[in-house]
Amino acid sequence: MKQVDTIIQGDAVITMNKQFDVIVDGAVAVKDADIIAVGTRDEILAHYEADNIVDCAGQYILPGLVNTHTHVPMTLLRGLADDLRLDVWLMGYIMPTEREFVTPEFCRLGTKIACAEMIRSGITSFADMYYYEADVAAATAEVGMRGVLGETILKFPAPDAESYDQSLAYTRRFIEEWRGHSLITPAIAPHAPYTVTDEMLEQCARLAAEFDVPLLIHISETALEVEDNIRIYGNRVIPRMQNARLFDARVLAAHCVHIDRSEMRMIRHHGATVAHCPSSNLKVAAGIAPIAEMLEEKLIVGIGTDGTSSNNALDMFEEVRLAAILAKTKANDPTAVPAKQALLMATRQGAEAMYLGDVTGSLEVGKRADIIVMDAHPVHNMPQFERDPDGIYARIVYAAKSTDVVHVMCNGQWLMLNRELLTLNETELLAQAADYARQIDSFLIEREGDILSKLLAIGGIEQGESYEVQAKAVLRDEAAIDRLLNHPDVEIVKHIHYQQYDTYFLFDEARLRYREDESIDAGLEVPQVRSRLTLTTPAKEHVFHSAVVLSHSRFIADADRSLRFYREYFQPKAERNLEKDRLRWHIRYKGVLMYVNYDRVIDPELPEPFIEIKSRTWSEADSEKKADLIQELLDYLAIPADDIVPADYLEMEGLAK
Amino acid sequence: MKQVDTIIQGDAVITMNKQFDVIVDGAVAVKDADIIAVGTRDEILAHYEADNIVDCAGQYILPGLVNTHTHVPMTLLRGLADDLRLDVWLMGYIMPTEREFVTPEFCRLGTKIACAEMIRSGITSFADMYYYEADVAAATAEVGMRGVLGETILKFPAPDAESYDQSLAYTRRFIEEWRGHSLITPAIAPHAPYTVTDEMLEQCARLAAEFDVPLLIHISETALEVEDNIRIYGNRVIPRMQNARLFDARVLAAHCVHIDRSEMRMIRHHGATVAHCPSSNLKVAAGIAPIAEMLEEKLIVGIGTDGTSSNNALDMFEEVRLAAILAKTKANDPTAVPAKQALLMATRQGAEAMYLGDVTGSLEVGKRADIIVMDAHPVHNMPQFERDPDGIYARIVYAAKSTDVVHVMCNGQWLMLNRELLTLNETELLAQAADYARQIDSFLIEREGDILSKLLAIGGIEQGESYEVQAKAVLRDEAAIDRLLNHPDVEIVKHIHYQQYDTYFLFDEARLRYREDESIDAGLEVPQVRSRLTLTTPAKEHVFHSAVVLSHSRFIADADRSLRFYREYFQPKAERNLEKDRLRWHIRYKGVLMYVNYDRVIDPELPEPFIEIKSRTWSEADSEKKADLIQELLDYLAIPADDIVPADYLEMEGLAK
Repeated sequence: MKQVDTIIQGDAVITMNKQFDVIVDGAVAVKDADIIAVGTRDEILAHYEADNIVDCAGQYILPGLVNTHTHVPMTLLRGLADDLRLDVWLMGYIMPTEREFVTPEFCRLGTKIACAEMIRSGITSFADMYYYEADVAAATAEVGMRGVLGETILKFPAPDAESYDQSLAYTRRFIEEWRGHSLITPAIAPHAPYTVTDEMLEQCARLAAEFDVPLLIHISETALEVEDNIRIYGNRVIPRMQNARLFDARVLAAHCVHIDRSEMRMIRHHGATVAHCPSSNLKVAAGIAPIAEMLEEKLIVGIGTDGTSSNNALDMFEEVRLAAILAKTKANDPTAVPAKQALLMATRQGAEAMYLGDVTGSLEVGKRADIIVMDAHPVHNMPQFERDPDGIYARIVYAAKSTDVVHVMCNGQWLMLNRELLTLNETELLAQAADYARQIDSFLIEREGDILSKLLAIGGIEQGESYEVQAKAVLRDEAAIDRLLNHPDVEIVKHIHYQQYDTYFLFDEARLRYREDESIDAGLEVPQVRSRLTLTTPAKEHVFHSAVVLSHSRFIADADRSLRFYREYFQPKAERNLEKDRLRWHIRYKGVLMYVNYDRVIDPELPEPFIEIKSRTWSEADSEKKADLIQELLDYLAIPADDIVPADYLEMEGLAK
Repeated sequence: MKQVDTIIQGDAVITMNKQFDVIVDGAVAVKDADIIAVGTRDEILAHYEADNIVDCAGQYILPGLVNTHTHVPMTLLRGLADDLRLDVWLMGYIMPTEREFVTPEFCRLGTKIACAEMIRSGITSFADMYYYEADVAAATAEVGMRGVLGETILKFPAPDAESYDQSLAYTRRFIEEWRGHSLITPAIAPHAPYTVTDEMLEQCARLAAEFDVPLLIHISETALEVEDNIRIYGNRVIPRMQNARLFDARVLAAHCVHIDRSEMRMIRHHGATVAHCPSSNLKVAAGIAPIAEMLEEKLIVGIGTDGTSSNNALDMFEEVRLAAILAKTKANDPTAVPAKQALLMATRQGAEAMYLGDVTGSLEVGKRADIIVMDAHPVHNMPQFERDPDGIYARIVYAAKSTDVVHVMCNGQWLMLNRELLTLNETELLAQAADYARQIDSFLIEREGDILSKLLAIGGIEQGESYEVQAKAVLRDEAAIDRLLNHPDVEIVKHIHYQQYDTYFLFDEARLRYREDESIDAGLEVPQVRSRLTLTTPAKEHVFHSAVVLSHSRFIADADRSLRFYREYFQPKAERNLEKDRLRWHIRYKGVLMYVNYDRVIDPELPEPFIEIKSRTWSEADSEKKADLIQELLDYLAIPADDIVPADYLEMEGLAK
C-alpha cells in the first residue's frame, strides 16, 4: 500500500484524457500537488491509503475548468455600464474609471473577487490580461489558483505606466520575479492590433521568446478591426501579426471572431492557440467565432469568460454550453461541436491553449491535482440515460450549472469544500468591493451631472471657450441685406454658403449642440462637411440696448465621434433638431470683424428669413463697444423693434414644442 | 389597518409595471390569490397588517417569470439524444420513444419534474404543448403553477389519439373541462405548418375562437420549413396561416426564427404574439430570431425555454440573458434589446404573449400574486453600482443565476420557501423518473443492438426479404461474357449499365448497404439515380458445389433519407465504400430468370473484372436446382476453380483493409 494525501472517490471520474475515459465508481489519488493514480475505486483503494478519503457518492469528479481569457481585476467594474456601444462603454465609462481608480490594491481586490466566483464555477486555471499584473499574480497565488497572467502593453499611457517603455520594463521585471512559480506563469499581453504598433508587437514577442513565456493578445474581435487593418496595413490581422514576427512567441489569441480559413492555417502553422469568448462576443455585438471551422483546421481552441464588464459573469458552465450551441447555428449543423468537444475545450484543450497542457486540464497521472467535484443528480439534470456513452458530457454541458460544483482542488490544495471557500473571505471582500463601488458611483454621478466634465472625460478633445455679442431679427425686407453689404463702412472679407444640421441635446442646466456644417461651394464641387460640438448654457450673460445679447460657449471642439455616440453617451433629457440654410459673410465694419448670417430655417420650417449680426468678444469693455456697433447696423437697416428676436432659434415658439 | 394574508418586504420591489417602478425598501401585500398593494415598506406597514410578514433583507422581489414555450412532459426525455441532426433526433429517438412510453402517467410525472425545475428557476407561469394535456393540467394545478396548456393536433397518429378527429374531440373535452380554472387556461396546439393541413388549421382556429382560448403553434422554426411552404403552398408561412384563417384565434407563435418584416406586420395586425426560444434555436441550428426587428415592429414577444429535449434546461435566467446578448449580435448593435427589455419579455410582455396580461407578469394591484424573491448580493453579482437606474435590470439579466431564487409564490400560494419546494416531493419524483429512464434505456439499447428493429423504428419504410443463390469469379477471359450471352439456351431479357456507389455500414452481426444506382442509358440521357438500403448478415446460409452460395437479405427498401442521416442514426462500427461499373443482363437460362453482372471495381480499384451469376430463390429445393444451373454456366465458361471468389467484394483482400 502506498501512502497518499487524499483519495477522492465518486460515481464517475470523467478524466478528459486522450481516450476520454469515464471511470464509473472511480477514484483519484493525490499526493502533494500531484495526481498519483486514477482508476476504479476498488483499484485505488487496493493500492493506496490516505488519511483523507473524500467520499463523493452521487457526484462526478472532473478536471478543474480552464478559463482561457479574462480580466480579473475588472470584476470590480461589473455592471458599471451595460447595453452601450463599444466606444461609449470603453471611452465613456471604463477608461475614465480605470484612469481614476486602478491601483495595485484595486487589482488585488478585483482578482480575489473574481477568484471567488471562478472557484464557485469550477475553474482552477485562468489566463488574464490587465494592469499591475504582479499584484494579480500575488493575489492569485495567495488564493491558490493557477494563472497565466499577461501584463498589458499599450501605445497609450496605462494606469500602471506612463509610456510603452515603462510597460515593457515593468513586464520584464514581472516575468523575472514570477517565472518558475508553481501556480503562476507570467506573460506579456500586447493589448490588440489597434492599440499597439508593429514595432511594439515585435519587441513584445522578443521579450516573450527570451523568457519562453506565453504572449496573450486580443485578435480580430470585430469586423471593424479587420477592415481597419486592411485599410491601414493592407493586410488582414493574422498576416500582419506574422509580418510583425508576433508568432516568434507562443501566442494565445483571444476572440478570433473574424478570421478566415487561411488565417486559421497560419495560426496552426505557428502553433498558436485561440481563446473563444462566446458571451462577450455576443454581448458587444462582435459576432460569432467560426469555432467548428477552427476545429476542422485542427486549431487548439479554449473557452474564456472574458472580463465581467463585457459578459458579466465568470461562469464557465454558461460559456461551455453557449460555445456548443452557438457553434451549431454558426455552422448550420446541429452535430457541430458536440458536448464532448465543448467540454474538451473547457478542460484539456483549454490547458493546451494556455500552454499548460502538461500541467492541468485532465485527470491523468503526472499532472497537477486540479480537480472539481459536482452533483450528478440535481433536479435540473434528471432523468439520466445510459445508452449513449457521450450522454454524460451532454448532461454536463447542456444541463449542469456552475452551482452544481461542490468541491474544488487546485495544485493539491482544497479551495472549496461543500461550497465553502477555504482560501477567501467573501464577506470581507464584498464589503471592500462595495466601498469601491460607492467611490466609483460618486465619481461618475458627479461627472454625469456636469456635462463639461463628461465631455472632458472622453478625452482627446480640446476645450475652447468663447464669448459672442449678437443680435437676431426677422428680415421682412430682403433687400436690406444688400444695403448692409453695400454700406460704405462695410468691407466683405469672406462669403460662405452653408447647409447646417443642428442637433441639440438638452439638459437641466446646459445645452450641447452637435452641428454638421455642409459648405455649399458655388462651383458645385463636393461639399465639405464639418462637425462641431458646442456646449452652452441657456442663460444670457448680458443684454445691451434690449437687442444685442452677450452669450458664452463653454466648450467648442471638433466632433470626432458620431452623433449616435454622443447621444448614447450623454443621454440627454430631450433632443431637438434644426436645419437651416445659411449665407454667411465675414465683414469688417469700422475695422471690427463681424459675421452676418442670412438664415432660412428649413426644418422645422419658419416662414420668414432671419438676419444675425455677431462678433467675438473677450472683455466687458470690448463687448459694450461691439454691441454699440451692432446696434448701429440694426438702426441702419431700420429693423422694427418688434422684429428683434432675443431668443435662440431653439426657443422660438413652434420650434421649442 | 387592513388585514391581508402576507406582506413580503425586501431591498427592492422590481415591479415591471408600465412605469418600470423600482421601489427601494419596498413591500407587496397579498390576500388570497391577489396583490392588494405595492409600495415602500413604510407605506405598506402603515396601512396593512398580516400574520405572515416575510422579511427579505438583502433580496429583490420580482414578478414570477413567464415561460412562453415548453413541452413539460418531455422533461422525462432530457438528454436522451443530443448533438444529432433534427431528423435523426426526432424520427430516430424522440418519436419512437414517445410512441412506446407516452401515457397519462408519463405526462403527469414529466410535468411535475419540469415544475420542480421551473419553480427553482423563478418561473410561475408557462405555456405548454404536448399530448394528454388534461393530465398536464391536473399535475400543474396540483403543483400550483399557472399554465396555458395546448393539446397537440397532428395529421399523424399521436400517442394520445389514433387520428386527427380523435385529437380534436379530445381537445374539445379538455377545454370544456378546464376552462374557468384559476390556474389553468386550456388551449389548442396545432403542431406546426408542416404537420397539419390548412383545413386542420382552420378547424383548430374555429375551436379556439368558439371557446375564446389561445391557439399555440410552432411557426417558421427553420429555413427549410419556409422553403417547403413556398414550394408547396406558394407562400411564406405567416401568409399561409392567414389564408387558413388561423388568426381568427388568439395565436401564440413559437420560434418565428425565419419571418420577414411583412410577416411581422401581419402578426401584429392580427394581434398575435411570439415566443422566442433562443437556446433551442441555437442548439438545433435553426438560427437566430430577429427579435430586435420584431420589437421595432411593436410585436409582443415572450421568451421560452422550449422542452428539455432541445435545450436541455428549463432555466429562464439563461434564456433571458441569451435573448439579450444574442439579439445584439443578430442586430449588429450592442444597444439592441437592453436588459430592461429582456426582463420585460420574461415577465409582463411574456404574460401578454400568453394572453395573461391581466393576470400576471408584473407586481401591480389587481393582478394575481405571482411573486419571486431572489438574492441581491451573491458574489457573482458584486459589486453593484447605483448611477444607472437600469443597472438593476442588467444585474438580473446579465449576472444573476436561477439558483439565486429563494422564494416563489404563485396565485398567492408559496411553492418554494428558502429553496425548499412545498408542493412537490423531488426525491420521489426523481426515483420515478429514474425508473422510466431505465425502461427507455432498455428499449433503446435493445433496439440499438438490432439493426433491423432500428430500421423499422424510423418507420415509413417497407420491409422486404430475399434469398439469392449466386456465384462470383474473376473474369480473365473477357470474351467469355459474349460466349455466355450467345449460349444457345440463354435468352437476354434486359440489359442495363450501372454506375454503383455502395456504402457499407458494418456492425458486429450485420451489414447495412446503402447503394446509389446510377443507370447509364445508351442514349446518354440524364442518368436515373435510385438509392436502396439492404441489410445482410456476413454469414452465408449455404454453399453448393463449393462455388455457389446462398445469401439472405433481411431487409430491402428504398432509401428515402440521406446517407448522412443513416450514418448518424446507425453509428456503424466501421464504414466501407465501394464504387463499381456494372453491366447487367437479365437472362433466362433453361426457363429460369437469372442475372449476369460484369463488374469492374473502380474504387478501391481491382485489376481484373468479375462476373457474377445469380438468381432469386424461395425454397431449399429451388435453391439447389438453381445452384446446379449456375454451376453449369460456370463450367461452360471454363472458369478455373482458383478464380471462383466465395467472398463479397467487401471481404476481398485489399478491400477489407
